[in-house]
Amino acid sequence: MSQVISPHEDTIVALATPQGVGAIAVIRLSGPQSIQLVNNVFYGKDLEKQAGHTIHFGSLREGEKVIDEVLVSLFLAPRSFTKENVVEISTHGSSYIVNQVIKLMIRQGARPAKPGEFTQRAFLNGQFDLAQAEAVADLIHSDSEASHQAAMSQMRGGFSGEITDLRAQLIHFASMIELELDFTEEDVEFASREDLRNLVEKLLKVVERLIDSFDLGNVIKNGVPTVIAGKPNAGKSTLLNALLNEEKAIVSEIAGTTRDFIEDEINIGGVIFRFIDTAGLRDTTDTIEAMGVSRTREKMKSASLILYLFDLGDTDMIEINRDINLLENLGVPFLKVANKIDKGNKQLINELNRLHPDTIFISAGKKKHLDLLKDKILELVNLDKFKTGNTVVTNIRHYDSLNRTRESLLDVLTGLDQEVSNDFLAMDIRRSLHYLGEITGEITTDDLLANIFSKFCIGK
Amino acid sequence: MSQVISPHEDTIVALATPQGVGAIAVIRLSGPQSIQLVNNVFYGKDLEKQAGHTIHFGSLREGEKVIDEVLVSLFLAPRSFTKENVVEISTHGSSYIVNQVIKLMIRQGARPAKPGEFTQRAFLNGQFDLAQAEAVADLIHSDSEASHQAAMSQMRGGFSGEITDLRAQLIHFASMIELELDFTEEDVEFASREDLRNLVEKLLKVVERLIDSFDLGNVIKNGVPTVIAGKPNAGKSTLLNALLNEEKAIVSEIAGTTRDFIEDEINIGGVIFRFIDTAGLRDTTDTIEAMGVSRTREKMKSASLILYLFDLGDTDMIEINRDINLLENLGVPFLKVANKIDKGNKQLINELNRLHPDTIFISAGKKKHLDLLKDKILELVNLDKFKTGNTVVTNIRHYDSLNRTRESLLDVLTGLDQEVSNDFLAMDIRRSLHYLGEITGEITTDDLLANIFSKFCIGK
Repeated sequence: MSQVISPHEDTIVALATPQGVGAIAVIRLSGPQSIQLVNNVFYGKDLEKQAGHTIHFGSLREGEKVIDEVLVSLFLAPRSFTKENVVEISTHGSSYIVNQVIKLMIRQGARPAKPGEFTQRAFLNGQFDLAQAEAVADLIHSDSEASHQAAMSQMRGGFSGEITDLRAQLIHFASMIELELDFTEEDVEFASREDLRNLVEKLLKVVERLIDSFDLGNVIKNGVPTVIAGKPNAGKSTLLNALLNEEKAIVSEIAGTTRDFIEDEINIGGVIFRFIDTAGLRDTTDTIEAMGVSRTREKMKSASLILYLFDLGDTDMIEINRDINLLENLGVPFLKVANKIDKGNKQLINELNRLHPDTIFISAGKKKHLDLLKDKILELVNLDKFKTGNTVVTNIRHYDSLNRTRESLLDVLTGLDQEVSNDFLAMDIRRSLHYLGEITGEITTDDLLANIFSKFCIGK
Repeated sequence: MSQVISPHEDTIVALATPQGVGAIAVIRLSGPQSIQLVNNVFYGKDLEKQAGHTIHFGSLREGEKVIDEVLVSLFLAPRSFTKENVVEISTHGSSYIVNQVIKLMIRQGARPAKPGEFTQRAFLNGQFDLAQAEAVADLIHSDSEASHQAAMSQMRGGFSGEITDLRAQLIHFASMIELELDFTEEDVEFASREDLRNLVEKLLKVVERLIDSFDLGNVIKNGVPTVIAGKPNAGKSTLLNALLNEEKAIVSEIAGTTRDFIEDEINIGGVIFRFIDTAGLRDTTDTIEAMGVSRTREKMKSASLILYLFDLGDTDMIEINRDINLLENLGVPFLKVANKIDKGNKQLINELNRLHPDTIFISAGKKKHLDLLKDKILELVNLDKFKTGNTVVTNIRHYDSLNRTRESLLDVLTGLDQEVSNDFLAMDIRRSLHYLGEITGEITTDDLLANIFSKFCIGK
């Protein structure tokens, strides 16, 4: 069912570390010739006589010219990332040297690696399945605890395990039905239709749970789309900046590492919140009725979370109640956030406490009660499901395949209801198997692989 | 004479590869505890029981949480870069993971490394001398063949060797003189004054050759300051762009590596030419007489090379002769470059060939004869001295120390001429020894070290 894999005969080379100035750079080779190609230009010892998982100091030379003094790490097939012979050359971190070394390796017979080609080889050589390979890319791009944990769990096979279990059960099911096909004239029933229905329903439950988890998975991977709604002077920018600066302060200075902060992306308790630009949302009117404008309304509906922010010194209960009513009709979870606590009059605050006891009172400008606000935000997005270790689907390709699996399984159920012939049943089951197999790579096409790995960075 | 070094008791940690997204990142630790600290959070095997120069696969965990699956490389003291226990952790190349791992190591007891601290430890532990340590930084920042070769030669000890030889001879000289001091009353002469004079003169020759090499070294390290002079429409920008684009084309696309091209810095045959901005040079007048303006004249005089560019279709012999005359008076090497060969009339070209047979005829717009121009440029800067493997001084700190050595040696000669007393002679010799020792780090101060290593990147 899976493709026949021919072993790779060429040796690929690429820079594995980021570009730019650093203390060291690592250039990676993979393929049957990798050790020999490096050995041709390495002075120090005979690399072809060394054990795997060892490191060797020496110099890379081209003729008389010393290109660099390097450390060479050897990994012998199949005990390497790609299951091929792998060499990692650790050079001084100069882009000039990196270029010279890669050119030297190409002249020796290596080929520049395509994006993701090391991971693709690891997959094709059976190091891991496709979902795990995809998790490698996710892991590299993870920028929050939640996305990191989801990618790590997927890379370590949590997700694949669940899929593979499902598939094993379905394969057994399919075999039974197909066995019956061989005995059609004898009217035997190897597989109890009732047991099969139970199995498919059980499978559907799992598939649907995985599909449902995609909302969460998407949020984990791409951030929770969040809108701060409120009148122009409610303090929206001040709140955003206060949250961002707190994050910057929390990410303590670690020598040698920095974080690029994307304005409007804020990490709260390990979850990324992506604040949607609502510029213009309130430009034409000063009440939340601007939501009536359909474009604005659409924007707010696309959010997973709305912070409804109002200035205690510049509003009244009538306005607040009307806004809250509009937000309730929108159907997006929202928090009521009363800003500028120092400006509120006692009566309004009392009334708010009575009518909307879940109101959070803050001062964005004076950074008061921001921790409380963050707790409430995390409570609302509720990542508990994720934290209990349940498998979460974060990849849209997997989501698509799961939806198709679901449709095929539903067809199987319909077939059972309508007592269709075994060959039709078998076909629908095979279709389910196909879509599940796409996720872990048991079913692949060259196009699919090319598409997946082209999104990797070079050197991975 | 050199400082007493106490072994480092703390363990330092830093990212050793550039920041940014790559397939892998390498985090480096050095210090007595480095293996133990990593072992505390490493799952896979007991790192403290492994041999040096070996690589181990496992996972880094904090409690239940898997931070990453990593490769750990072990280097046991003294067989490591710093001569201490060194561990390199190769993680997936995510800045989130890098931050987590460094934080984890700090919680285990490591300390964030200061810039250049790994190299500083290598120097203090006797791995190499100060000039070699400085070459490590130069090597990382080298961006041309010439600067790379100069740094590599210095790192491999070529320069240090020459200095150390000089110093050994001087020390012998000093001891003899000082021995005489012990026997002042007996009027013995252990060192023949004539031999000593010969030795000092020999030393002066070497020191002066090294000082002279700094012009070349500076050019190698920082590029040859070059001016294209000519009338506004002579084609100066066109020529600059044509040279830059040729360079880009020559630096062939290597997957996974790019080069940042600095406009106005062009690599010709492995040497960087830094084109000085001459905007405004010809804005007020259309003849090269603008050089008469002293500021412009200064700018041109600061160049090591001038390309005098003229448009064959927009000039005559009178103008050309006057310009060349002015340039000759300037005293900066220059090339006569006739642009727009297709526009020149036969008579002018014949006359040029007769009066100035060294004129180079090109077409910058049509990229004609640019190779010839580049050959002539390289001929003029003449890096042969460098290419024959002679030691070149590229570091201004070394240049300063060499100049002071020279002054002290001249004082010794004057002392010999004036037959000063032995204690004065000995003092001048000690002074020469001191300045030579500064270069290789036999004489250091904490300030000097701090100043040198603070210019390194973190992780080196």
